[in-house]
Amino acid sequence: MNLITLTTDFGTQDWFVGTMKGVILNRCPRAVIVDITHEIPAGDIRAGAFALMASHRFFPKGTVHVAVVDPGVGSARHGIAVQTANYFFVGPDNGVLSFALAKEKIKTIRRLENERLFLRPVSRTFHGRDIFAPVAARLCRGFPIHELGPLQKDFVRLPWHELRMRRQEIEGEVVHIDRFGNLVTNVEEKCLRDVFIERCRLDIGRRRNIRLATHYQAVPGGEAVALVGSSGLLEIAVNGGSAAQQLGLKIGSTFRIRLN
Amino acid sequence: MNLITLTTDFGTQDWFVGTMKGVILNRCPRAVIVDITHEIPAGDIRAGAFALMASHRFFPKGTVHVAVVDPGVGSARHGIAVQTANYFFVGPDNGVLSFALAKEKIKTIRRLENERLFLRPVSRTFHGRDIFAPVAARLCRGFPIHELGPLQKDFVRLPWHELRMRRQEIEGEVVHIDRFGNLVTNVEEKCLRDVFIERCRLDIGRRRNIRLATHYQAVPGGEAVALVGSSGLLEIAVNGGSAAQQLGLKIGSTFRIRLN
Amino acid sequence: MNLITLTTDFGTQDWFVGTMKGVILNRCPRAVIVDITHEIPAGDIRAGAFALMASHRFFPKGTVHVAVVDPGVGSARHGIAVQTANYFFVGPDNGVLSFALAKEKIKTIRRLENERLFLRPVSRTFHGRDIFAPVAARLCRGFPIHELGPLQKDFVRLPWHELRMRRQEIEGEVVHIDRFGNLVTNVEEKCLRDVFIERCRLDIGRRRNIRLATHYQAVPGGEAVALVGSSGLLEIAVNGGSAAQQLGLKIGSTFRIRLN
Repeated sequence: MNLITLTTDFGTQDWFVGTMKGVILNRCPRAVIVDITHEIPAGDIRAGAFALMASHRFFPKGTVHVAVVDPGVGSARHGIAVQTANYFFVGPDNGVLSFALAKEKIKTIRRLENERLFLRPVSRTFHGRDIFAPVAARLCRGFPIHELGPLQKDFVRLPWHELRMRRQEIEGEVVHIDRFGNLVTNVEEKCLRDVFIERCRLDIGRRRNIRLATHYQAVPGGEAVALVGSSGLLEIAVNGGSAAQQLGLKIGSTFRIRLN
Repeated sequence: MNLITLTTDFGTQDWFVGTMKGVILNRCPRAVIVDITHEIPAGDIRAGAFALMASHRFFPKGTVHVAVVDPGVGSARHGIAVQTANYFFVGPDNGVLSFALAKEKIKTIRRLENERLFLRPVSRTFHGRDIFAPVAARLCRGFPIHELGPLQKDFVRLPWHELRMRRQEIEGEVVHIDRFGNLVTNVEEKCLRDVFIERCRLDIGRRRNIRLATHYQAVPGGEAVALVGSSGLLEIAVNGGSAAQQLGLKIGSTFRIRLN
Repeated sequence: MNLITLTTDFGTQDWFVGTMKGVILNRCPRAVIVDITHEIPAGDIRAGAFALMASHRFFPKGTVHVAVVDPGVGSARHGIAVQTANYFFVGPDNGVLSFALAKEKIKTIRRLENERLFLRPVSRTFHGRDIFAPVAARLCRGFPIHELGPLQKDFVRLPWHELRMRRQEIEGEVVHIDRFGNLVTNVEEKCLRDVFIERCRLDIGRRRNIRLATHYQAVPGGEAVALVGSSGLLEIAVNGGSAAQQLGLKIGSTFRIRLN
């Protein structure tokens, strides 16, 4: 397997992603490249970190995960490559890798300083093409990670959205809104196991007493429902509709789960 | 060949499609995965069925076609795998496969019940990842279809948009609007062969006497034209413009073709 | 390597691109297909030419570049295949290949007339599927280019956006707006080398004295900056924002660079 994934905010209207793939295939002709998404909102490091966290573990061992959401490109921030027990990760050291890395067992962190591996000249605006793509291609071919550059002790970590838990109540936060308008929250499934899900009710915005259920169609069409989604996080959805639109909520909106 | 196609309403802004590919490549490392589209309108089973019908036959024999437009995910609807003379089809049994299957010679229909093949635990909201992707990967590797689950006699069929034909007139319907604003209709080429195309005129909305021609530029820029499109269906277009916008029409709009 | 790139205005909401890939893989099962972009504005030949020019040279030698922005499909315009010192190019002869070809050493130009290679019947509206995809697949497999059709002496060239240079001033033009709202211009890096970049100032719209710098974060957040972008062309950007929105500019907007 020579698998590389790409998570960026480059969009698909320009030639940026295609160009990165050209650079990779030039250096690793057998690479299989999978797009996670290129529609991370421009410069939204946290959203990129979330997408990588939600998807990386479904790939085969040895996959090289590249994430480029990089508003500081060309400035002093460094690029890093991280080897974990199962994967490689490549990207700017600005937190975009940090949610995924928090789930993995870190083996080594290297700062990308071996300029012989980069495209020449390195542009100041497109390290995805000039640095991260060629480095990922080398890792994919088995190039030893310690030759990428010096050891680094740690990486930049974004703070996770902390839950506020009280005795009879959890206060959570919307952390992602998906294509269907489902509201993904920071409440992990394990928080709910302690209480009987059947006894939980959720209040969000003006909507009160939203039921916790197992699937979207567990409630009538047009009604709101809360459930544990495919990433193991609590989601708020509307059966057959967009919860974001119908409830008028955004990323950062808070809600309360309480025992009935 | 280990070819798998994907047709979904998952969009490309989230990690859903990338995750399905990870699951497939984990189980069938040599799979070549082609996206038909992921921009089927959310929950629009009919649009998904149409896209699959229009594209599936251009793929090599043995291709595994996966379609996931699945508003009933997690409810009582079943998943199926269908083997035809040329292809495999995998998806929810809600009609999304039915337009393509209507063009194929069915060999066997299996209900997906062999849970050993699924991801564990199976989520109630993302069977694309947990059921359909791993099943497609197995079929792609030559896993025998009869081991997927019990025989099923038939599959859910969506009604096709019936034409109303009178002696001197056909009443048709817009069934798809493409990226260019071209209006794809339910009038198949063969319906038009019986009459001389030169003698046909088309009335739609307030626009009358639209000419049938062979290509977009057969009429001056900005003018409406009707022609047999690349799917073998009558299309209404505007040369250099969007017929949908200029004629103010939608999916479901009707029109009449008459002999002049 | 059996690499094929695709640059089109087909969008990704329909089945057009997927279908082209099916046709290619039918004829060249080992083809690796890379999307440059499918979001060229509908019928915008110049935008397609620009995307191909900006990306083609990052691919391995021997890559087959296919570009289909083809408002004249089905009319008298021809299809061509061009072999250069490094690549093959396939598409309509309407200028969409011309910016990339201007950077390459041409070896042969062939008009696509060998109908035995095409899909049958050839539609009048989708030559991407019926002509360009099967021709690209053949080239990818090593089919000799001279068997595609007769020699053609030249190809249709789009005029490049000429710079107006005066003694102390360059008048340039916005030629592309990228996903981030960065304004890509027709000013090549080499034009700027003659003057000291530090001494240059740029006036565009009501905004005067924009600094030339090396990277986005060289100016405070929200401020405009000009820099040489990843395609070797001068770009106007806003650190952390969209230059297109904040400066209210469009493709075709002009600006002046002057020595301070």
